[in-house]
Amino acid sequence: MSENDNLQQRAIKTIRFLSADGVQKANSGHPGLPMGTAAIAYTVWTRHLKINPTNPDWPDRDRFVLSGGHGSMLLYSMLYLSGFDLPLEELKNFRQWGSKTPGHPEYGLTIGVETTTGPLGQGLANGVGMAIAEAHLANEFNQPDHNIVDHSVYAIVTDGDLMEGVASEAASLAGHLKLSKLIYLYDDNHISIEGSTSIAFTEDRAKRFEAYGWQVLRVDDGNDVEKIDAAIIAAKKDPRPSFIVCHTTIGFGLPTKQGTEKAHGEPPGEEELTKAKENAGWPTDEKFFVSADVLEHFRKIKTEGATKEKQWQNSFDAYKKAHPELAAEFERRMTGKLPENWQEGLKKFDPDPKGMASRISSGTIINEIAEKLPGLMGGSADLAPSNKTWINSSKAFQSDNPGGRNLHFGVREHGMGGVVNGMAYHKGLIPFGATFLIFSDYMRGALRVSAISHLPSIWVFTHDSIGLGEDGPTHQPVEHLMSLRMIPNLSVIRPADANEVREAWIAAVNRKHGPTALILSRQNLPTIDRSKYASETGLHKGAYIIADLGDGKPDILLMASGSEVDLIIKAGEKLQTDGKNVRIVSFPSWDIFEAQPQTYKDQVLDPGIKKRVAVEAGSKLGWEKWVGINGAIVGMSTYGASAPAEILFKEFGFTVENVYQTAKGLM
Amino acid sequence: MSENDNLQQRAIKTIRFLSADGVQKANSGHPGLPMGTAAIAYTVWTRHLKINPTNPDWPDRDRFVLSGGHGSMLLYSMLYLSGFDLPLEELKNFRQWGSKTPGHPEYGLTIGVETTTGPLGQGLANGVGMAIAEAHLANEFNQPDHNIVDHSVYAIVTDGDLMEGVASEAASLAGHLKLSKLIYLYDDNHISIEGSTSIAFTEDRAKRFEAYGWQVLRVDDGNDVEKIDAAIIAAKKDPRPSFIVCHTTIGFGLPTKQGTEKAHGEPPGEEELTKAKENAGWPTDEKFFVSADVLEHFRKIKTEGATKEKQWQNSFDAYKKAHPELAAEFERRMTGKLPENWQEGLKKFDPDPKGMASRISSGTIINEIAEKLPGLMGGSADLAPSNKTWINSSKAFQSDNPGGRNLHFGVREHGMGGVVNGMAYHKGLIPFGATFLIFSDYMRGALRVSAISHLPSIWVFTHDSIGLGEDGPTHQPVEHLMSLRMIPNLSVIRPADANEVREAWIAAVNRKHGPTALILSRQNLPTIDRSKYASETGLHKGAYIIADLGDGKPDILLMASGSEVDLIIKAGEKLQTDGKNVRIVSFPSWDIFEAQPQTYKDQVLDPGIKKRVAVEAGSKLGWEKWVGINGAIVGMSTYGASAPAEILFKEFGFTVENVYQTAKGLM
Repeated sequence: MSENDNLQQRAIKTIRFLSADGVQKANSGHPGLPMGTAAIAYTVWTRHLKINPTNPDWPDRDRFVLSGGHGSMLLYSMLYLSGFDLPLEELKNFRQWGSKTPGHPEYGLTIGVETTTGPLGQGLANGVGMAIAEAHLANEFNQPDHNIVDHSVYAIVTDGDLMEGVASEAASLAGHLKLSKLIYLYDDNHISIEGSTSIAFTEDRAKRFEAYGWQVLRVDDGNDVEKIDAAIIAAKKDPRPSFIVCHTTIGFGLPTKQGTEKAHGEPPGEEELTKAKENAGWPTDEKFFVSADVLEHFRKIKTEGATKEKQWQNSFDAYKKAHPELAAEFERRMTGKLPENWQEGLKKFDPDPKGMASRISSGTIINEIAEKLPGLMGGSADLAPSNKTWINSSKAFQSDNPGGRNLHFGVREHGMGGVVNGMAYHKGLIPFGATFLIFSDYMRGALRVSAISHLPSIWVFTHDSIGLGEDGPTHQPVEHLMSLRMIPNLSVIRPADANEVREAWIAAVNRKHGPTALILSRQNLPTIDRSKYASETGLHKGAYIIADLGDGKPDILLMASGSEVDLIIKAGEKLQTDGKNVRIVSFPSWDIFEAQPQTYKDQVLDPGIKKRVAVEAGSKLGWEKWVGINGAIVGMSTYGASAPAEILFKEFGFTVENVYQTAKGLM
Repeated sequence: MSENDNLQQRAIKTIRFLSADGVQKANSGHPGLPMGTAAIAYTVWTRHLKINPTNPDWPDRDRFVLSGGHGSMLLYSMLYLSGFDLPLEELKNFRQWGSKTPGHPEYGLTIGVETTTGPLGQGLANGVGMAIAEAHLANEFNQPDHNIVDHSVYAIVTDGDLMEGVASEAASLAGHLKLSKLIYLYDDNHISIEGSTSIAFTEDRAKRFEAYGWQVLRVDDGNDVEKIDAAIIAAKKDPRPSFIVCHTTIGFGLPTKQGTEKAHGEPPGEEELTKAKENAGWPTDEKFFVSADVLEHFRKIKTEGATKEKQWQNSFDAYKKAHPELAAEFERRMTGKLPENWQEGLKKFDPDPKGMASRISSGTIINEIAEKLPGLMGGSADLAPSNKTWINSSKAFQSDNPGGRNLHFGVREHGMGGVVNGMAYHKGLIPFGATFLIFSDYMRGALRVSAISHLPSIWVFTHDSIGLGEDGPTHQPVEHLMSLRMIPNLSVIRPADANEVREAWIAAVNRKHGPTALILSRQNLPTIDRSKYASETGLHKGAYIIADLGDGKPDILLMASGSEVDLIIKAGEKLQTDGKNVRIVSFPSWDIFEAQPQTYKDQVLDPGIKKRVAVEAGSKLGWEKWVGINGAIVGMSTYGASAPAEILFKEFGFTVENVYQTAKGLM
């Protein structure tokens, strides 16, 4: 073995044992993946991955996704070894309170972590979104002789990822879109938690990815750096996304556990680990052992990375000279800054008793925003004609038209979720994804990741209640709106009319550290007369007083969101003619309201007004927070039914008369 | 054309135009699928499907699944034509309030509908569950010369189904399990809502299904009865599940819309439809036209079906003579009746301050129930060792061991959901599926269908809070428990100790018209001393008074579920030593409590006790319903973190001291 080979082997062992030591010290975690894929990570990071550990935000860096996030110690080991600002101490503090090394990688918490992974399949889908962003931005910004955007997305994907539907959806889309920058290395170790993959996962994975339109390559020994290297080189040359099947051994090196499910998700045990080190000729007296020459070897990633970024910066400077406007736009986009006063001049909608569906006004606003913000890009899970999300001034994003800003996601809600998140992780775009509100259920895994990762993904959910009508209860959301409100850091906005829709979109675009779900109607909503009632800008406080009807302290407070605001206005007017004093509150967003100062909250929901009615064509459960135990809620507690919307609203009690009577019943 | 051919063609046209007339009259719906697949449905129903329209519950009938539920008029047409008790009037009342013909097929509402479909992919997965049930029951009940269980599952599946991840998961599992009774006909019409499938769905579907291990057959003309027939015959002969790719034309016959997305989801229009009828030589003056000879032709399904069931009944009678006990058991199982007093003798757990995780006691109870109820069958999405769901007295269900009662679902939560529902639709089993509570998000689509369809599916969700510990926030449910409570007709039970776990399982098994989610801990829960505190049978009322501490009317009421009940007991005892009167309420199930008489509810949550504290390691949002606006909630409003569980409970305020102080703060 040459000196170089020897160093390489010791470098790989360093990854392996750093990871295993981390798990053993935490007495919790997953040694199997890091030990099995150490050589793969080594090959990617030392031979291919274009990164600068000193500047993890370098826009043209390659992205590395550890889709099997349970192998987090692999990633933490690589980040430390290659010189990111993640000290060895953090590896020793794996999975402890306050550490930078949580059980599964978290975007935003740990430097160099490109995606939050752990929920399986998400990372695989995120990479697809990153590659879409890369292709689109390359098309938009690159110029002859100026290759500003040109990077790859590497991922290590696992059996668990491949079994998940979200991964199937995203992989099919990636094949269709011919995302050639995707290089996925499949940790084919034949083991999942319950045992050998032969118990449940015997499909021909290679053939399946071929069916999706991927190039499939094989590495028969996942510890063989040269073979891995050759496959990656071949992957780079192909115009398709590449799927490299690497035959590996889970927990490689653990004398009794390697190659079994016992190596997957529990500490190896001191004895087993010591034995593994002995067998590998590794020091057993020092944990977290990294020899100076190995560290130096890895740290070349840092020095070479700095050089690479410098070279890129030089070419970017040249680009800047040749194309100053494009360069400025690129810089703005990659930092996520919005043009000043970008929201000015967006359409104001005139009062109109007939009004329009909020999905329609949303479509208008999307198209106006698209003109002002060229980064706005998204699409629907095969429901664009219904969701009204098409950007008319652009075409579809396709392999032969990467400039398109409309994505045809297909009937793949969960995949869409992961892809939109990937675009958000990548930066440079304002990504959105759309479907019927009912199908937010199909993509909840991705919604949650967008919220936990503080991503500015925008989710457009239309057909938001029984107002969907004839399609019936399988398509009528009941519990969804409230269920979305439960997700921490997901902003949920259900605007009441076209002007609130505009403000909702402004709020969504301006929100940079978390996703927003816009909840929109299928049916027409009257456009409220704002000369008579309060301005729609109250939306930015979450809830606001539309009007105090009557001339004294309110006897009763009516609150509603979205399509039901019209009902409480009309019921309030009716109560007013009875001589009552009525406060009408439009309540588009609970989370925004919660974030207001208590004084504002007490101003709107005056604690002195005890009689309260909430009206919303969704779950009642939850509204007690605002109306109290003795308040009244006009809402849903069952499924809907199949019939025209106006009949459903009547049958389920969403009428002016019922709201009026309910309010009277309280008084 | 022979007379017979002529009749056949007119029969197919009848299906086509009945469906189109239904959509046109409703002015809402999807004509494209029924018109495109009329010949497929015709072939399946008249030549293969073993059903008896007079007895839709015949246990050995074939199952027909319309996975693309938007084509519901196809199914309603077939049900009417073949003689189910669904009059023509109902077809004319398509999508109207109170009709039996909702926008998408609903199990339980419409006679002969085997599955609720519409949310795409679900039906495809349900069929897999049905075929598992068939294989298992055949193994259990068939005897030499007595083939009591021997039926197929036919499905029409669409592009939309195939794009959904849930379908990928289920199809991969079906291939692995070699479910030969599956015969899926793929409506390959090249159209989805946004346009040609070429815009988003260009994968090689046939190859993909081959990769899953299916036999793939092709029918180049989906209007050719003989070719469809030949493919089905070939499908029946193969030991693998079969996927028949039928090349079809969406909206076949619509002069300007056929073959385009315009035929998919909107009424054809009077003019277009009239023209289609003219072109087909069809009467244009009478809508919902069915000629006498065509009806007679279809009604042979009814007469022949009755004969087929009679033959089966004869062989069942012979079986009954030869194997009376087996026959009785089969009858009991297929009607879903439980043995009397089945729950007697289940383990009672002794008081124990250390106690055990509720997933562990659940595992014990599962194994005890498995002995008493041989129909109990289920598994986990690759987390059995953690979910503790393995039935020790049995082995895995596999193609070479269909008698196994443990299912390895693989890392396929959503597919599992659909498969478990399919087993429930089939009847004869008490099916369950398990995963971490966090991944209920991945299968919410199936959870909702189980609830809307009144299926007795049992969902086992373990690792129910930050108590999961080091795996961190990506794996710690926060909003999930409350989000599940929002789903109408899903019973959600979070037991507080091992004895409540037993009662929770009893409640779940006894619940026949809706699913139950059991929410279980990773960590140990003390087993409450029931000689000192109230009996765990209070669980069957949803909430119950564990104790009134002190000697007067309670000053304060503490309520909690699951792992937090121990906290309120201890905090209550501490308050008692301060001289306070404290009511302690264990609150395992909101939905069960809601169903109690108001007098009971007022007894437990005495309206006179205004000071209330709720403690639950999940979303606070929602608890205001029980504690009021001025009550206190010790709960979560953020994500968790990665650290040992005991540290997390302390950091997030789930300590006796914090509950005690919170209660004192109210008083």
